[in-house]
This record gives sequence, structure tokens and C-alpha cells, in this order.
Amino acid sequence: MEIHPFWHGYPELRKRLAKVNQVIHSHIRIKDQNIKGIINDVINSGGKLLRPAYAILCSEIGPEQDEDKAIAIAAALETLHIATLVHDDVIDQAETRRGNATLHELYDNKFAIYAGDYLFSVCFSIMSSYADSLSTISYNTRSMEKILSGELEQLHSRFQPPTSVKNYLSRISGKTAHLFALSCYIGAVESKASRQIARRAWNMGHYIGMAYQITDDILDYLGDGEKMGKPVMADAKQGIYTLPLIYTMQYDKNAVTAILDKEEPLTNNDINQLMNLINQAQGIEKAQNIARRYTNKALQQLNKLPDGDYKDTLYQLTQQLLKRTT
Amino acid sequence: MEIHPFWHGYPELRKRLAKVNQVIHSHIRIKDQNIKGIINDVINSGGKLLRPAYAILCSEIGPEQDEDKAIAIAAALETLHIATLVHDDVIDQAETRRGNATLHELYDNKFAIYAGDYLFSVCFSIMSSYADSLSTISYNTRSMEKILSGELEQLHSRFQPPTSVKNYLSRISGKTAHLFALSCYIGAVESKASRQIARRAWNMGHYIGMAYQITDDILDYLGDGEKMGKPVMADAKQGIYTLPLIYTMQYDKNAVTAILDKEEPLTNNDINQLMNLINQAQGIEKAQNIARRYTNKALQQLNKLPDGDYKDTLYQLTQQLLKRTT
Repeated sequence: MEIHPFWHGYPELRKRLAKVNQVIHSHIRIKDQNIKGIINDVINSGGKLLRPAYAILCSEIGPEQDEDKAIAIAAALETLHIATLVHDDVIDQAETRRGNATLHELYDNKFAIYAGDYLFSVCFSIMSSYADSLSTISYNTRSMEKILSGELEQLHSRFQPPTSVKNYLSRISGKTAHLFALSCYIGAVESKASRQIARRAWNMGHYIGMAYQITDDILDYLGDGEKMGKPVMADAKQGIYTLPLIYTMQYDKNAVTAILDKEEPLTNNDINQLMNLINQAQGIEKAQNIARRYTNKALQQLNKLPDGDYKDTLYQLTQQLLKRTT
Repeated sequence: MEIHPFWHGYPELRKRLAKVNQVIHSHIRIKDQNIKGIINDVINSGGKLLRPAYAILCSEIGPEQDEDKAIAIAAALETLHIATLVHDDVIDQAETRRGNATLHELYDNKFAIYAGDYLFSVCFSIMSSYADSLSTISYNTRSMEKILSGELEQLHSRFQPPTSVKNYLSRISGKTAHLFALSCYIGAVESKASRQIARRAWNMGHYIGMAYQITDDILDYLGDGEKMGKPVMADAKQGIYTLPLIYTMQYDKNAVTAILDKEEPLTNNDINQLMNLINQAQGIEKAQNIARRYTNKALQQLNKLPDGDYKDTLYQLTQQLLKRTT
């Protein structure tokens, strides 16, 4: 399968990411060829493989290098990510994700629920196939628990309009940043980095994940106004607020809720009004400031990691990721 | 919480099952007290704890007895069972399960999907907390994978009318029997029973699971005709056939499909007609014969297990379970 063009400038990493995909595919043990094909399509549907990339790079932090193990770890993390995406799709009723039609549309929500369950078990299976100690498994399992309980709590908070910056940051911390942090941390730990250094890797991953999600949420508001604004405003109407809108609520709550609380679906005029409000409130600039702050924190942690080729790649990758405009 | 009245005649086992519940609850680590409460309610909603009971009894097969470990194994198995039930509820849109309103009705499908995911991770967490070897974890993970891929394949087969006995048996084998087999097997293995004996425990569990599911499916057709028949016929209309109806299809396929393939919802008259056809075809008696055959096979395996008090309890429990009328 094709590795995402994002990795064009990283030939060595790209080779390893192709191996990550192979490991995942080799763990899909389903008799029914039809179902196996569907699951393989989901895996191939072309995510960037960011979490595996960070795990692999961080597996060069410590003194012990075992490429096969690093690739297996990366595969388990990506499988976990895919499993949560498949279930998120059911939940969000998202029409598209990554530009392709989602699994639940093509093959029904029911299928997607079981497919996600199956992928969770594949994640554990990959994890237990590489692990060389029970404590690794215990640790990883606790981390997965944390990610999944985070999703539960996040869902719950949708019903309490999350209009504070603090609430937003805690939500994306559980949802996105935790898996980035875990990816960097496991890589470091498995290469036998010291506790202190592994903790730095964790922090770096956490800050990268935070900046990544904020940047992602900002990108929803950029580009062609009406076309871009519609889906994100529809989310907002359902109670899913991201940072640019939260700053706008702080600037003029009444004006925002007057538009979002209407019974009817949003009109183009509503969306234009909201966009104007966001501009007045400088919602996007303020969100960009926060993302920049997290990026800087991530780079500070990165600077403190032991020297090595991996460090340049981590630096380049993180800069590219957080400064992207698409 | 209350242990199901089914265990009234088993005071010792009942005490251990109460501990199983405690272990599960102690692994629910969720900050939000509201969500924690909901999850605890699901766990308390009063299943029979059959799989834990078999795991605990089978943990007395081998020479090494460790009650805490046996209880942890049992807790992991029950958590897996609950997680699949929560997702099954979403999928079946079942109105009630175990007599209570289901999670998805009370708190939305979305919540139920994430709650099931979380419970999967709790299952792994309990599993890795007791496991004393990586191979145990690997084995258990592979078994879980098998159960979950079984669910996927079962769902798929709904669209190919499963009107053969063979198809039905293979479906319930993946869905129910595998978890019973696993429960008995893990109990035996962890008590250091020999390979041969552990394999017998597996077979016994498999046969018990088969007989249990067939009996469960038969019970849907017994009792007050119209009231009992309606939900099972509605399932049949959606392509979910169980053994009594499959035998009836073999007896007079045209008559059955003429009723089930109608566009309109089933009337009371339709249901009465189907019930008459089932009686003519002796669908229930034939299904009971198959259940009896599996029960006998289970008891044959049981007889070959090493002597011990647990054996009487296993015998009594299995007889009670498979001869029940409610």
C-alpha cells in the first residue's frame, strides 16, 4: 500500500512505516475473505501514521535498539488509533474522514462497531507479541484505559457546553495528546532510556499532541469560508466547540448563542455572521498563539533529549506538522 | 450488590462470585463520578455470572490452587462478556436485556459504544494484573480476537439467510460456546492442569456453551405464545434464525418465507401461523434433542476430569443450567 506523501522527505522512516503496516495486516486473522478485505481497506485508508512515526523515532532515544520491537510497538499504537477512529466515525456520523467514505456508511454502523472491537483485540495481540515483560503490558494497558475513559468523559462533557479554554484543553489532552505522549514514551522506555528521559519524551509527545489538535481545529476554520465553515459550525450546533469559537464566546457570548441556539439548521447567512464574529474576536489568532506555545514547549523538551540523528528528524517532523496549512 | 438467585444452592461459589464483582468494580477507574456510576450499574445489572463460575470451578482441576488468581481470571472473562453485551445491545437495538432497560436507551448509543470500549480495556487490565506469564496473555488475547472476529463474521452471515443447522451451530460456536470453552480452559491451565486435561475442560466448556445457547433460543419459543413469539419472530424477519425455526424451514420453507418475507410488520395471525408450523415441524423437540446431545457430550468430558469436590458442583450446575425452563 501507499505511504502518505507527507513522508516524502523521510525515506528511512517511510520504509519503517511500510513495515508497520505489514505488521498490522499480518495480525488480521479473519477467515471470511470479504470481511478481511474490508478491515484491510480500513487500515489502508491512508492515515499519516504520525503516532507510529513518533514511536519509532523515540525508540532511538535510549541505548538499546531493536527495530522489530519498535515497529511492533508502532503497529499496536496505530491499531489502537484506527480502532478509536472507527468507533468515532459511528459516533460522529461523520460523512467523510480522511477524504474517503467512512466504514459505517459503506457497511453499516453495526459492522463498524464489531470491526472496532476486533481492532482493539488486534492492538492487544500485537502488544503482547512484542512485549518482553509483564510490566510493559500492564503499563500499556493502563494507558489504553486512560485513553478510553477519556473518550467516555469527553462525550459526557458535550452535554455541558464546553465553552471554557480549560475544558477544551482537558478534552483534547485526553483524546489526542495522550496517545501522542504514550507513543513517544513507549518508544523511549523500550529502548531503555532512563526514567527521566522517558518522562521528557512523554511530555514532548503530550505537547506535540496538544499543538497538533489545536492546529487541526484551526484548519477547519481556514480556507474557503462557507465551504469550510459549514461542518465545523454544524459540530458547534451539536455542542462540540473548538478553540477559535470558544474565544469568540468569551468575546460575545450572546451573539454566538443567538445563532447556534436557533431551532432551524444554520443558513449561509448564519455562518457568515459567525465567521465575522470569530474575526472580530481574533479567535483564530488567539488559538494559533496557544498552539505556538505548545509547539515551543515540545521543542524545549526535544532539545533536552540525548543527541542523535533521530533528534534532527523529530525536530523537522514536528516543525512540519505544526506549521502545516492543510 | 446482589448475586443472582440462581446461585442460592451454592453458598461457597456465591461468595467467590461476589469477590469477582468486587475485582471488576475496583478496576473501574473513572474520574467523573456520574459516568463511573453508570458503568457500575451496567456491571451490577444482574447477569448470572456463569462464565466466572465455570472459570472458578475449573481452577480446582489442577494441582495448584490460587483463589485470588482464579477470581481475577473470572473477573476478566465476565468483563469481556459485559463489553460484548453492551455493544450487542447497540447492534440489536434490543429493548431490554436481563429485564432492565439497556444502556443505549438510557444514555444513548454513543455512550454505550465508548463504554464497551472502555470495558474491553478493563478486561485486558485485569488480565495483565493477574497474569504470571506473557504466554498466558498471548493466549488469552488470541482467544479474545477469535471471539471478536467471530462476532464480525456472525453479523455478516445475517445477510445470507442462515437456514442451515450447520450455519447456526457455527454461529453460536463463535458467539457463546467459545467464551464458555475459554473460561473452563483458562481455569484449568492456570491451576497447572496437564495439557490433556485442560483440553478436556475446553471441550466441556464448548459443549456447555452450545447446549446453553440452544436452550436459550428454545426458551424464546416457550411460555405464553403470542407474547413470547413476537420478539423472536421479529428477529427472524430481520434474518436472525434460531434452531426451532431452522428445522421448520427444512420442513416447509415456502410456508415460512411466505410469512417472513412480507413487507408489512408481522400480525398476531402471522405469528400464530408460524407457531403452528413450528409445532407441525416439531422444531422445538428437534432443537431440544440437539441440546441434549451437547449436554451429554459435556457430561462425558466432565466425567473424565480428575476427582474433586468441584466436580460435583460442576455436574449439578450444568444439569441445572441446561434443564432450566426459564
